[in-house]
Amino acid sequence: MTKKGQLIVVSGPSGVGKGTVLGQYLASRERIAYSISATTRNPRPGEQNGVQYFFLSREEFEQTVQNGGMLEYASYNGNYYGTPKAPVEQQREQGNDVVLEIEVQGALQVKKSCPDALLIFIAPPSFEELRSRLTGRQTEDEKTVENRLNIARQELKCAGEYDYIIINDTIEQAVERLNQIISANRYNKNNMKEFLDEVNQNA
Amino acid sequence: MTKKGQLIVVSGPSGVGKGTVLGQYLASRERIAYSISATTRNPRPGEQNGVQYFFLSREEFEQTVQNGGMLEYASYNGNYYGTPKAPVEQQREQGNDVVLEIEVQGALQVKKSCPDALLIFIAPPSFEELRSRLTGRQTEDEKTVENRLNIARQELKCAGEYDYIIINDTIEQAVERLNQIISANRYNKNNMKEFLDEVNQNA
Repeated sequence: MTKKGQLIVVSGPSGVGKGTVLGQYLASRERIAYSISATTRNPRPGEQNGVQYFFLSREEFEQTVQNGGMLEYASYNGNYYGTPKAPVEQQREQGNDVVLEIEVQGALQVKKSCPDALLIFIAPPSFEELRSRLTGRQTEDEKTVENRLNIARQELKCAGEYDYIIINDTIEQAVERLNQIISANRYNKNNMKEFLDEVNQNA
Repeated sequence: MTKKGQLIVVSGPSGVGKGTVLGQYLASRERIAYSISATTRNPRPGEQNGVQYFFLSREEFEQTVQNGGMLEYASYNGNYYGTPKAPVEQQREQGNDVVLEIEVQGALQVKKSCPDALLIFIAPPSFEELRSRLTGRQTEDEKTVENRLNIARQELKCAGEYDYIIINDTIEQAVERLNQIISANRYNKNNMKEFLDEVNQNA
């Protein structure tokens, strides 16, 4: 029997570099899938259904929620965003791990409905460092930066709800830590139930 | 300020190969100490105080227990065996991890008194494999093997009390898993309290 893949939730403030860390980690391993979110916002030029997002109508989205088909969802700027449950479960049943890169509120919903999910928070070395990274981008005006920092403040306050916290000092270290955490979690007693059952039956 | 070292407890049945796994792991890393147990049994020829064991008199041992100076202790064959607390704490304060290789009952005592301890159980791939490893040694008679297997049965039933379970399929894999588990545990939210406090104050 194939061992069910792990459900891995990764969050972190905007500007912390979680996209880069996750990208490098995913590229380095096999048998892992990146969950594609669903949204009701309109596709931007070049975006394809099932690639960047699953694009759903408001009715479709709400129907899926009502049928229990979303692992988590939230509303931003008048649009829904969520994680469809079916593809995640399908991958896990095949023994593949699945990564959800989602916001803090969604992560806490997943923690409630899937207690076996592994929650990892990627944090900046300090709040000042995050400010400097966001300012350094120079692609965003001061008001946008302040807005992002305010959201980051709220997010960092929830970091203690996650199982693990990775400080992104350097990309290489953060990728290595992510790998260690996800690898080690396979041997957590909660993921060794089959073995324990077998041992207790035969011993 | 130096971050306090981790307290790592490793148990596993006789014959599972935990000595080999631990030995290879310890040789591969720095800033880790192997805790030396105390005992009231007499030193065997060649054994030195403070190397294989701290050799204590019955009175010294009982006095230490009464003063709360043992992390855990138990009695086997009429002799006490235990883990003196002071050297463990000293190493941890210096930022070094400390490994205790102890029996299941002692491990469960440590879990109670030190909830931040990381408990790792090393298990055989199967009970039959353990039997074959013990029989294969050919240094022990049938009665000793049966006795060890009976103890192993009891120990395996406690594996679910540990945080992590490593199946020792091959030494190399087991050493790698041990390394991943101990490395990852540094980023467990329970070991990130200082960071979380700081972030919450400054955010």
